[in-house]
Amino acid sequence: MAGTVTELRQPEPEGLVLARNEGAIARLTLNSPPANALSIAMMETLLSALVEAGSDPSVRVIVIRSEGRVFSAGHDLKELTAHRADPDRGAAFFAWTFALCADLMTAIVRHPKPVIAEIDGLATAAGCQLVASCDLAICTDSSGFCTPGVNIGLFCSTPMVALSRNVQRKQAMEMLLTGETIDASTAREFGLVNRIVPREYLNQVVTKYAQTIADKSSMVVRTGKEAFYRQAEMDLDEAYAYTAEVMVENMLARDAEEGITAFLQKRKAQWTKEQ
Amino acid sequence: MAGTVTELRQPEPEGLVLARNEGAIARLTLNSPPANALSIAMMETLLSALVEAGSDPSVRVIVIRSEGRVFSAGHDLKELTAHRADPDRGAAFFAWTFALCADLMTAIVRHPKPVIAEIDGLATAAGCQLVASCDLAICTDSSGFCTPGVNIGLFCSTPMVALSRNVQRKQAMEMLLTGETIDASTAREFGLVNRIVPREYLNQVVTKYAQTIADKSSMVVRTGKEAFYRQAEMDLDEAYAYTAEVMVENMLARDAEEGITAFLQKRKAQWTKEQ
Amino acid sequence: MAGTVTELRQPEPEGLVLARNEGAIARLTLNSPPANALSIAMMETLLSALVEAGSDPSVRVIVIRSEGRVFSAGHDLKELTAHRADPDRGAAFFAWTFALCADLMTAIVRHPKPVIAEIDGLATAAGCQLVASCDLAICTDSSGFCTPGVNIGLFCSTPMVALSRNVQRKQAMEMLLTGETIDASTAREFGLVNRIVPREYLNQVVTKYAQTIADKSSMVVRTGKEAFYRQAEMDLDEAYAYTAEVMVENMLARDAEEGITAFLQKRKAQWTKEQ
Repeated sequence: MAGTVTELRQPEPEGLVLARNEGAIARLTLNSPPANALSIAMMETLLSALVEAGSDPSVRVIVIRSEGRVFSAGHDLKELTAHRADPDRGAAFFAWTFALCADLMTAIVRHPKPVIAEIDGLATAAGCQLVASCDLAICTDSSGFCTPGVNIGLFCSTPMVALSRNVQRKQAMEMLLTGETIDASTAREFGLVNRIVPREYLNQVVTKYAQTIADKSSMVVRTGKEAFYRQAEMDLDEAYAYTAEVMVENMLARDAEEGITAFLQKRKAQWTKEQ
Repeated sequence: MAGTVTELRQPEPEGLVLARNEGAIARLTLNSPPANALSIAMMETLLSALVEAGSDPSVRVIVIRSEGRVFSAGHDLKELTAHRADPDRGAAFFAWTFALCADLMTAIVRHPKPVIAEIDGLATAAGCQLVASCDLAICTDSSGFCTPGVNIGLFCSTPMVALSRNVQRKQAMEMLLTGETIDASTAREFGLVNRIVPREYLNQVVTKYAQTIADKSSMVVRTGKEAFYRQAEMDLDEAYAYTAEVMVENMLARDAEEGITAFLQKRKAQWTKEQ
Repeated sequence: MAGTVTELRQPEPEGLVLARNEGAIARLTLNSPPANALSIAMMETLLSALVEAGSDPSVRVIVIRSEGRVFSAGHDLKELTAHRADPDRGAAFFAWTFALCADLMTAIVRHPKPVIAEIDGLATAAGCQLVASCDLAICTDSSGFCTPGVNIGLFCSTPMVALSRNVQRKQAMEMLLTGETIDASTAREFGLVNRIVPREYLNQVVTKYAQTIADKSSMVVRTGKEAFYRQAEMDLDEAYAYTAEVMVENMLARDAEEGITAFLQKRKAQWTKEQ
């Protein structure tokens, strides 16, 4: 994909997130090193970049990555602290922060396009939540992950929503109660990341994953991703009743007809272009 | 168990599933190589073989295996495609297919007897779902697993119901979004299979597992299996209220009295024979 | 912590549980070797020791361990069997036993302080449930875990509530259906324990974990632990709505203000002392 960069946008404000489309892949780069803190501005910018990528028919897969050696250190503690001077001691600002954070994370889960976290460095607190919220995660061997809020008197309660839906119970609890950092290998063992690669190959491997998915029918990927997270919250009977309906609709869609026919004819399928 | 074959039945139609009882173990063999596709006929035959094994008091454990080098390639694409010529473009047939598939898979989960998948080869799409739906799964080191529907425009939405209840979220998502095949070792790491064995020992090891379970009280195994899947869908308080009742009833049953007495007397228990 | 023992209490009756406070860590030792069976008396004593440690402001972390080479063999089969002579064949006593067991296990999950299982030996049936119910578990390399009720006609239906919330489905089913013992390494792979250590370091490593957690704010740990298990039973939207509120309240609490300020000032935080 290198060399096929078609666009370089700088969303408002101040280039906090660099959006770069490489063919069907939108790479959103958190661009506030060294911490890449999830300030209000950063969360709003990332959210609006996600919305934009969602409605751009040329984008089929989104990658979230970061500039510098910290993927994201989580919320902006200085920003939060400054609002302690507010008349309400920051209550309204804190509520805004965590509501916006929840919106951002659920926007990834509900996003019509797959979102891959490309991690090289430390993903901390809400930064770790960002990784956990993505559909897939690929990291370098020197990456680390932690939910260290407990160390500073602020338990990682919103991060654990995403973490505990990725990682088994005792392992999540160890991260949350001790606040200690796990290395890439432990993160893979825990199920928090899909794959570990040497730094020099990170971009290339993530692009390969993204391209593999971008080559599928966007309609089918969107349908499947939505169904995945919805059925995960249902009991078995509901889940089957719901997904059986999804399958019937999928079968009746043009891309299933084309895909199955192409498969039986041993040729490459031509997917519907998203409008 | 070799040599103790007591029965060789050929359910309708055309021997699609060979049912062979070896002592207390019923081995149901998908017999439609090379693909062992889950056509309507295959699903109905397997379902009726499961029902039959369920009501046969001599059967205590069921093994599902396949003839040939593909465990099952999933739904029968040619059969599905042929119904596109129907007046409703296949809608009714597709609905029947996925409803029957859901019935088959939940029949395994709700089956009164444990069901073990014995896999030697590739388990694809609904074939992978069949493995995930069984209580236990043992495979050869050359087996593979995938949910590749996304490659042909038909996301594996019903297979993911079973898959996502066996495999952690990001790992399930990787299989579903990329459609790629994982090897036996990865499947074990993901939690999709219990054990990997060399091909020459597969039958023997599965029989050993099955016999270990067949030697327990059928009543107790049935009670426990049912309770397992039911409590899994409850919150903690409900789950304890429910299982505490199950335990009391279990204690009052004859086999618990016999089992505990035999244990305290250091002798082998004599379980109630199922009628 | 060795040498700083401040208290040695012997709860009623008969020293079944030895409670020993070492600084902020309460070590509760099941003291009924060789089996450390969870008789009514043992469960009541452990429950009251947990309640006591819960209301003791000097205690910040609880460790549950055992005297002898069996962590706990589960319910007291002789006690259960003796009540078969009751007019109701034991029904009321069995109901009491399993209700008390559920109370004990949920008391650990709902306990305001983290509970760590320190295991050296075999944890069987309700003994395995006790391990699974703790927030963290650390064991020696010669420890083992099983749910062997099926072998004696009494399926481990209440133990599986805790087990299946720690261990993936097929792995839990294998333990429950075969009744076989898994070793420490398998238990770690399954997610049932956090860490394995040689016996000579067990006490030291558990103390290090406990001390690491004891050094956090008790208020924050209590808030976070409660939120963890509550959000685990919610769907994604509920979980975020709930934990976002928890975060706002946490931010407004004195320990978050102190913790974040201390962090920004690169000094050690001074947590509120529990009253």
